[in-house]
Amino acid sequence: MSDVHAFIDQNLERFRNELFDFLRIPSVSARTEHKKDLLAAADWLADRMREAGLQVKIEETAGHPIVRGDWQEAGPDAPTVLIYGHYDVQPAEPLDLWDSPPYEPEIREGKLYARGACDDKGQLYVHVKALESHMKTAGTLPCNVIVLAEGEEEVGSENLMPYVREHARELEVDAIIISDTGMMAKGKPTIGASLRGIAYWQLDVTGPATDLHSGSYGGGVINPATALARIIAGFHDDDWHVTIPGFYDDVDEAADFRAKIEDLGYDEDAFLEETGAPSLGGEVGQSTAERLWVRPTCEVNGLLGGYTGEGAKTVLPARAMAKISCRLVPDQDPHKIDELFRKHVANVAPAGVRVEITTIHGGAPWRGNLQGSLYEAAEAALEMAFGAGVVYAGEGGSIPIVPEFEDTLAAPALLMGLGLPGENAHAPNEWFLVENFERGIHAAAELLLRFAQK
Amino acid sequence: MSDVHAFIDQNLERFRNELFDFLRIPSVSARTEHKKDLLAAADWLADRMREAGLQVKIEETAGHPIVRGDWQEAGPDAPTVLIYGHYDVQPAEPLDLWDSPPYEPEIREGKLYARGACDDKGQLYVHVKALESHMKTAGTLPCNVIVLAEGEEEVGSENLMPYVREHARELEVDAIIISDTGMMAKGKPTIGASLRGIAYWQLDVTGPATDLHSGSYGGGVINPATALARIIAGFHDDDWHVTIPGFYDDVDEAADFRAKIEDLGYDEDAFLEETGAPSLGGEVGQSTAERLWVRPTCEVNGLLGGYTGEGAKTVLPARAMAKISCRLVPDQDPHKIDELFRKHVANVAPAGVRVEITTIHGGAPWRGNLQGSLYEAAEAALEMAFGAGVVYAGEGGSIPIVPEFEDTLAAPALLMGLGLPGENAHAPNEWFLVENFERGIHAAAELLLRFAQK
Repeated sequence: MSDVHAFIDQNLERFRNELFDFLRIPSVSARTEHKKDLLAAADWLADRMREAGLQVKIEETAGHPIVRGDWQEAGPDAPTVLIYGHYDVQPAEPLDLWDSPPYEPEIREGKLYARGACDDKGQLYVHVKALESHMKTAGTLPCNVIVLAEGEEEVGSENLMPYVREHARELEVDAIIISDTGMMAKGKPTIGASLRGIAYWQLDVTGPATDLHSGSYGGGVINPATALARIIAGFHDDDWHVTIPGFYDDVDEAADFRAKIEDLGYDEDAFLEETGAPSLGGEVGQSTAERLWVRPTCEVNGLLGGYTGEGAKTVLPARAMAKISCRLVPDQDPHKIDELFRKHVANVAPAGVRVEITTIHGGAPWRGNLQGSLYEAAEAALEMAFGAGVVYAGEGGSIPIVPEFEDTLAAPALLMGLGLPGENAHAPNEWFLVENFERGIHAAAELLLRFAQK
Repeated sequence: MSDVHAFIDQNLERFRNELFDFLRIPSVSARTEHKKDLLAAADWLADRMREAGLQVKIEETAGHPIVRGDWQEAGPDAPTVLIYGHYDVQPAEPLDLWDSPPYEPEIREGKLYARGACDDKGQLYVHVKALESHMKTAGTLPCNVIVLAEGEEEVGSENLMPYVREHARELEVDAIIISDTGMMAKGKPTIGASLRGIAYWQLDVTGPATDLHSGSYGGGVINPATALARIIAGFHDDDWHVTIPGFYDDVDEAADFRAKIEDLGYDEDAFLEETGAPSLGGEVGQSTAERLWVRPTCEVNGLLGGYTGEGAKTVLPARAMAKISCRLVPDQDPHKIDELFRKHVANVAPAGVRVEITTIHGGAPWRGNLQGSLYEAAEAALEMAFGAGVVYAGEGGSIPIVPEFEDTLAAPALLMGLGLPGENAHAPNEWFLVENFERGIHAAAELLLRFAQK
């Protein structure tokens, strides 16, 4: 075993304890009352990155700061990698559903429970410790490195890309490495093959000037809630295909990737159990993994109208609202989907009501290159660290900054996620498998070595 | 002019002032903090009924009391009428939308503004003053009279019918007179020809055990909010006919009544303006008056699911809820409609979600007999008081106690409503046309005279 891996093994307990300290800081970016905690987390992280041998700056933004660490002494012939992660976390509420307090990290049955354990403090810290391990053993890193750790990922990363674009010339990199996703299953090291994009709207349907008595007026005017339900129901046919004209036009059917999915042996039973739904269901003719990874969706995220309290109130509501979002797959474009969605809703909206469509946000889908030296290095590093062959899995969620990073920096991104299904990333009892934290550090260290040698 | 009508005209100012006192009592039956106000209103009303010459009892119930006044000295050959009304009122909130405080009655441009002015204190008091006017002039009433004034109409009249059934032998009456509805328009004295019934449900659609991330899980399980929208959209076809199989089977097409509606000259423009909707709309092939009076409906009264706050949250909701109600017309039966509704929802509910149906309440529709001595007397009395011929109009709302009164007491009911369109009965700025209060007293007094002579 090389020096670096021996060093990692000898220091795992300290690494865990340090991560505990990081997790004790409630750096909830969504809540202004935690502003000082965001600063404390940024300072703490900056100190650890300095100890790892990086030149560290805390970059102010219009929101929470970006912690940046540079080490550019590998010389101009060595490649440069950008490691991205985030030190902010989701709110922990509802607190009563946590089995141990969210900011008092605790290991139970090999799982480290804490808010941010997996998303993303634990995964970000994997890379910090890999860098330290190289520096403490070799005195250098295998390649040039820039770490960007932002504090606004959970609130939309609004200030990250402006920073990246502004500093694009300093950020000429050969690879972008991100650990903020998951593995398919324990013991199955996974490279993220794709991300879905997103387009999100609010629909407001209005009719009468005020809520009306459903007896005295019902039947004589169109009910906005009924009209909204009709619009929503019209987004799918009976086979749960999306019916918005043109919706599937740019979907890359990617037969080669579908074949890969079939080989994965996706565990549908485990997925069903994880959701707690009565049964699986979705677009006819697609497997669950396909529905999640390579097929777009149209989902209701919220519904509100009329009387929603206990018992009965005979009201014909003046308005009804829905939050609707589509998950998109390559090569769908959120702007084009926005146009198609608006045109479709306008076409199907019943007479007698007004429909207002507000576009809330959008983000592009992404499919990884999955080839070249970065991916070869990652496959080898993960296989070494986990003792098992790498699988390529899709991801149903959206990380709009991934395609934006690739576009802005003209370098390939690698999703080396270390989470696991059921990790409760945005829910109570978030956890990170301690074994994945440890093997992850080995993998991250090995990845730099291998990528530098290519 | 007979003595009674002269007496009424001479005392109108006093009658108005007394009604002001009645309206100053905030007898909101829905709010426990107003319990003492309910008792105060009952006491106040009992005193006025005693002054009118009735034998008065305040009958305790499991809820708010029933004020009962009897005068049975017209002899066994004279008919007996039951006059029903209610002294409780709707909550006044939102208070900031009132132009004058809800419990400080005020007359502006001939309208008396106050909570309960029209619904139903003003209309109930019309009858109390008609009785007083007979007693103060003739020393007797033209016929035997029982007044029942309940304090729970706005919260479902739960204790009224049990009382009526328990006392059915004392309540052998020849007619039931109710002033708790409206006239078609100012100057058009109106007899209520029909009421719609109601069946009200809550639908709860559940899927995943908890709210899920719409990216990581979206597409793989059926979204309960989408499923609910599909169920709701399936209640109507494109022509807004209700699609529940068997729904229209018992609808009495009542061609004769339709012909009457056509003659009424229903003012659709005024109705549209009243609602503030962009346009009228509803079941194809029916006029607005038909849609409101002789056609059943299926309406969404409330919708709730997922994230309903500001901005975006990418949640696939674990559950979605709708409040749904059908307004029913003769001879639809709420119990049969409940069965048809349940069967239909079970048939159309998509696989992958659970649907729970809770029946919240039901009430039968009603169509008046519109013939016989009671109606002849009412037509004559209203024509005398208003100087215009009577019209028969339907009412889209439901008063389930009307058919229950008729069934329990085996006597015809007369709806002699004195409200007007736009009176804001359950809304801020409720008003009652002073002219209708005054003409109503004349009409109510004349009705007893005429009915006794038949």
